[in-house]
Amino acid sequence: MDTLGTRSDFALTLADSAGDILRRYFRTPIGFDDKADASPVTIADREVEAVMREAITKAFPDDGIFGEEMGSVRTDARFVWVLDPIDGTKSFISGKPLFGTLIGIAEQGRPVFGIIDQPISHERWCGGRETPATLNDKAQKTSAKTAVKDAILYATTPYMFQGADRVAFERLASAVKHPLFGADCYAYGLLASGFADIVCEADLKPYDFCGPAAVVESAGGVITDWEGQPLTIRSGGRVLAAATPALHRAALAVLTGH
Amino acid sequence: MDTLGTRSDFALTLADSAGDILRRYFRTPIGFDDKADASPVTIADREVEAVMREAITKAFPDDGIFGEEMGSVRTDARFVWVLDPIDGTKSFISGKPLFGTLIGIAEQGRPVFGIIDQPISHERWCGGRETPATLNDKAQKTSAKTAVKDAILYATTPYMFQGADRVAFERLASAVKHPLFGADCYAYGLLASGFADIVCEADLKPYDFCGPAAVVESAGGVITDWEGQPLTIRSGGRVLAAATPALHRAALAVLTGH
Repeated sequence: MDTLGTRSDFALTLADSAGDILRRYFRTPIGFDDKADASPVTIADREVEAVMREAITKAFPDDGIFGEEMGSVRTDARFVWVLDPIDGTKSFISGKPLFGTLIGIAEQGRPVFGIIDQPISHERWCGGRETPATLNDKAQKTSAKTAVKDAILYATTPYMFQGADRVAFERLASAVKHPLFGADCYAYGLLASGFADIVCEADLKPYDFCGPAAVVESAGGVITDWEGQPLTIRSGGRVLAAATPALHRAALAVLTGH
Repeated sequence: MDTLGTRSDFALTLADSAGDILRRYFRTPIGFDDKADASPVTIADREVEAVMREAITKAFPDDGIFGEEMGSVRTDARFVWVLDPIDGTKSFISGKPLFGTLIGIAEQGRPVFGIIDQPISHERWCGGRETPATLNDKAQKTSAKTAVKDAILYATTPYMFQGADRVAFERLASAVKHPLFGADCYAYGLLASGFADIVCEADLKPYDFCGPAAVVESAGGVITDWEGQPLTIRSGGRVLAAATPALHRAALAVLTGH
């Protein structure tokens, strides 16, 4: 039970369970309350995380878990499961099927396997260090774009960037071919599949980017923080992902103004 | 052949044809060029409009047609078909299934029937003066929200608002519960189904709003320009749609600063 492979296989069953629950709740009148940061948290969100945590704890009792809803345990373990039951809760409550369940597996803090699962459209991106990127079992590859001016950029919303980050983002947005919004985690899937070229976001938590980071890297993309450093479960919330190393370098230069 | 009912039945067959074409092209490597305004226009876009126009001209030779790609004819006719083969071409080329085919029928210039068709998720909203709003044949109703502070707002992108319009939009965006982006015409469907409460947009053309306007009104919503005037095929590009008359009045007041 000490291998990554055992865990990545198991992660698929977690995504299956999550999807079953989310399909039951999507577009039904469900109650939700607001956390301190005002993001809506649905009953579905909590139910999915509880189910995933219980299964992980039973199968891999020594592994750490870092979840959006129910906090973290054993995050210094060799393997840590990084869980976002519903990435894009605002999409979810407004009936827009671009939210997703994110499952990341980190080894020694680095994302090494990820799943982006959209349960309504039945689209599942997977990938990691030992697993080539796939969308519903078909191999995926990022685009070959290298120039910022040719790139399609996604971010969930311009409102996720504050102060100097907003200025930096707007500099990048005005340099790309098409700056687009509103795709949540689905944007990282589009990047892995070669349809989008850059995803630039801020104000994220590790459970927002660990799963997507492994998927993007396994598809040939590059994903770092805004200092160009690799993402870990202890990274801050600013993420820049790009289809190729050259595009990532160029986008980072525009973003940081260097 | 002089009735609206004959035409709205016929419109469903146009949406079927459009969907067949778009499903063939979606997420395939298709060439596209840029129009003067830099919006990407795909081969698919043109093929769909050509097919729809040919069918309309054959069935209703005296009707007018106002299409995105191929211009307008007989727009002073009693019935005018208002066509957007792919609303959300940037979503389309980036692989995001929230674009749609929009078909509007205007009588004496006023939208009286509309279709919002998402061919990948197989979601079709319909509705008009003689047709209750439906999503895939199930009756739809806007939400009962009346207060701006409780509302979920959609716009395609903040970049669609220029100058004073941007200031007005940001005033409304900061007054709602959740300002969300990136749904294209799908946002009007979400409004008709009660999942979103306000859609506020600018820089639109009649083919962007005629079909959605008929759907929103038939679901109980209110849709006007930013002066509160009914939309016609000659309206300018600024649109405000809301779930209820009270919410529309309140949102218009915030938007215009009165």
